[in-house]
Amino acid sequence: MPGPLTLGQIVQRLGGRVAGDPQILVHQVASLEGAQAQHISFFTGSRYRAQLGATRAGAVVLGPEAENETGLPRIVAENPYAYFARVSQLFNPLVRQEPGVHASAVVAKSAQLGASVSIGAGCVVGEGAFIGEGSTLYPRVVVYAGCTIGARAIVHAGVVIGADGFGIAEEHGRWVKIPQIGAVRIGDDVEIGANTTIDRGAIDDTLIEEGVKLDNQIQVGHNVRIGAHTAMAGCVGVAGSATIGAHCQIGGGAIVLGHLTLADRVIISAASVVTRSILKPGQYSGVFPIDDNAAWEKNAATLRQLHGLRERLRALEKKTP
Amino acid sequence: MPGPLTLGQIVQRLGGRVAGDPQILVHQVASLEGAQAQHISFFTGSRYRAQLGATRAGAVVLGPEAENETGLPRIVAENPYAYFARVSQLFNPLVRQEPGVHASAVVAKSAQLGASVSIGAGCVVGEGAFIGEGSTLYPRVVVYAGCTIGARAIVHAGVVIGADGFGIAEEHGRWVKIPQIGAVRIGDDVEIGANTTIDRGAIDDTLIEEGVKLDNQIQVGHNVRIGAHTAMAGCVGVAGSATIGAHCQIGGGAIVLGHLTLADRVIISAASVVTRSILKPGQYSGVFPIDDNAAWEKNAATLRQLHGLRERLRALEKKTP
Amino acid sequence: MPGPLTLGQIVQRLGGRVAGDPQILVHQVASLEGAQAQHISFFTGSRYRAQLGATRAGAVVLGPEAENETGLPRIVAENPYAYFARVSQLFNPLVRQEPGVHASAVVAKSAQLGASVSIGAGCVVGEGAFIGEGSTLYPRVVVYAGCTIGARAIVHAGVVIGADGFGIAEEHGRWVKIPQIGAVRIGDDVEIGANTTIDRGAIDDTLIEEGVKLDNQIQVGHNVRIGAHTAMAGCVGVAGSATIGAHCQIGGGAIVLGHLTLADRVIISAASVVTRSILKPGQYSGVFPIDDNAAWEKNAATLRQLHGLRERLRALEKKTP
Repeated sequence: MPGPLTLGQIVQRLGGRVAGDPQILVHQVASLEGAQAQHISFFTGSRYRAQLGATRAGAVVLGPEAENETGLPRIVAENPYAYFARVSQLFNPLVRQEPGVHASAVVAKSAQLGASVSIGAGCVVGEGAFIGEGSTLYPRVVVYAGCTIGARAIVHAGVVIGADGFGIAEEHGRWVKIPQIGAVRIGDDVEIGANTTIDRGAIDDTLIEEGVKLDNQIQVGHNVRIGAHTAMAGCVGVAGSATIGAHCQIGGGAIVLGHLTLADRVIISAASVVTRSILKPGQYSGVFPIDDNAAWEKNAATLRQLHGLRERLRALEKKTP
Repeated sequence: MPGPLTLGQIVQRLGGRVAGDPQILVHQVASLEGAQAQHISFFTGSRYRAQLGATRAGAVVLGPEAENETGLPRIVAENPYAYFARVSQLFNPLVRQEPGVHASAVVAKSAQLGASVSIGAGCVVGEGAFIGEGSTLYPRVVVYAGCTIGARAIVHAGVVIGADGFGIAEEHGRWVKIPQIGAVRIGDDVEIGANTTIDRGAIDDTLIEEGVKLDNQIQVGHNVRIGAHTAMAGCVGVAGSATIGAHCQIGGGAIVLGHLTLADRVIISAASVVTRSILKPGQYSGVFPIDDNAAWEKNAATLRQLHGLRERLRALEKKTP
Repeated sequence: MPGPLTLGQIVQRLGGRVAGDPQILVHQVASLEGAQAQHISFFTGSRYRAQLGATRAGAVVLGPEAENETGLPRIVAENPYAYFARVSQLFNPLVRQEPGVHASAVVAKSAQLGASVSIGAGCVVGEGAFIGEGSTLYPRVVVYAGCTIGARAIVHAGVVIGADGFGIAEEHGRWVKIPQIGAVRIGDDVEIGANTTIDRGAIDDTLIEEGVKLDNQIQVGHNVRIGAHTAMAGCVGVAGSATIGAHCQIGGGAIVLGHLTLADRVIISAASVVTRSILKPGQYSGVFPIDDNAAWEKNAATLRQLHGLRERLRALEKKTP
């Protein structure tokens, strides 16, 4: 681990400004609750005010609006959460898996690996695949033939890129397989979480643009297109041929149906189901509110009569002058 | 890739009839948007009429009701989507993984492999397992001891077949494990998507009948039975001992609770939760409609009072003559 | 398989008492439907009364309240389901994967393995990881550097423990990675289902306490804490920094949002979405009721106007004396 830094040294490197003693020395980042005197922590909003009051951190990163919420030595930054990320990177430079191909990995002869690529134990990289410069595949990633990954990707264990999309056509009660002749193309600076799957295209390619961040256990269907710098939390499912804009945020467990379009900067709340195209930026939600089971049972039963209730309300309105 | 074919040659092999010049030569399939003169595309409904009008495809497959929607050379077929699948198979014969057992795979001595089976890199096949003739296991598939897979299966990377079912009994606040002594039996012509898991039975076997198609990241609990030619899209979860009929279609992200029954030809919409047996064919849905977040918040809050609203409506009805 | 036992021998080992002939010999457990004369089955409630009446089992385990529901030889036990689990364990002692490290596994030099640990084919155990005494890792489990697993764990194929949590901070429309410097710490007697993923902590560790049982394809985000003896069914997603109490039960497909708290002994119904902290034991639910598609469409459309309906109801109430 790199050595300790003073607050002054940190702002020299990252910007922002110190309030309090710039000679305070910190060794590592910590949460407000877990911090000791040698740690620097961060404060991003009033929800954490009690923890800020109780913290034993040596210093704190916070925004200008919160500068006076504590008397601790502090760094004031416009975007304290991103600033904290940068501080953490100072103390914790990314420990990459060793570059090179692990002896147990299976890389096809016709696959191309960029400079300084790291292919972990048990990975399988198919014919004609391409892995860009500086990318890391953690153990047991599978990249099917012909798929490409850009530079500086981080792909976590168990990811499968380029398996066949779910292309089947019904014929006399049986399913005929539609050859999946597209590939997967992934841009630069993409991170993909453990056990996520991204299917190859049916005809054209499945596209993940630069800077996209995918959490664990996400399923991306064939011919999906995910715009640059969009982030998706765990367990999201995106059905085939959906087009998702840039700078979107999709909450965990959300489902996006196939063949629809999300504009740039759309935010989908966790566990919501996107059943129609969304063409305006904004936040969208659709989750049944959780309740104690008895209340839920009553309300859910009534919900099945809701259309009828509206009709009855209309009838009453007509009768009431 | 096989050589080009004229429309006339295609209908000779697959049936249907040509409208327009049967000497038109096509080399590959394409989407309406992506097609060039050497491509054949397909048209399955009015939703894609604009694309049909704009396409540069050399020919199109369509149904008899749509025969006059374009002046392009075309093949008229009763089931244009399945016909297109067959055309694509002509141009793109399934490139199978090489038959045989990859050097890095681990196959138990007592496992039996049918003729022409392909076991990919990093696969693990347990004691007494059976893999039927012509089946392909892509890299990193695990088949636990005693499980059987029929002929011509396609099993994608990361699939786990035959892990223990979730059988636990509470005893004084702790969980006692129930030995999972059943296996998994999978019929012929089944395809299983990447990272899908199918648990072994608690006592009797988990059963996947012939022709079933499972997409990625599906979880099938112990003692589930899935009837022939049923298809499930990605991220479906089927809880233990559910019995699903033949020719069903389960949309992506749907959850089927345990110990219930779905009749043949039941269609479950994506992301719906099946909480009761469904004994009649038809389409069933249950999804909270997505809305902008502010509208959702209001409606969701009101939903928690819905039963009370019905009572108030009833009271009003009594008062209103 | 161990030899047959009389009912008398079973109660000698496990407690309970015999009603009927204690010399009846049984060889194996079975379901009520599948049982033959050499089998012992179990009965846990009136839902299965028809199967109890029709069973050909040689003997049955049941509770004292059901003692007279059958004339078959039987063992009466306070907790018949747990008792049956114990009987099944007598006939089916856990067949462990062979202890030792499979030749194809990759275990870092600095990793520590307790006595009698079994590491399956294709597993990868990172630097400084620890696997406790008697634990079994089935094939293709990945344990990232620095993560610890207690004694007697059962970890099924495809599990990934300790991949980076989804820690990213937005900065000028791009995502900055927050180093994930915590680890995963898992207690004793934990079982983890196939393809489940548990992320390492952002700063502090992700914690899974003793006796927790996780089914397949569960996603546990960074810094989650799961209390002792909590059980989660398949496909559950738990977002970062959620704190779940002890002895909870989370139904399949449920989603628990981040930074919230569940008290001990909370039961979440399958597919429900936990959007707020739950501080009282009990069962909680939130699922849109499934219906035939036409009825659902009407009710879902009306639901989007629900708040307005309440306003109209209020207006009517004011007008109606």
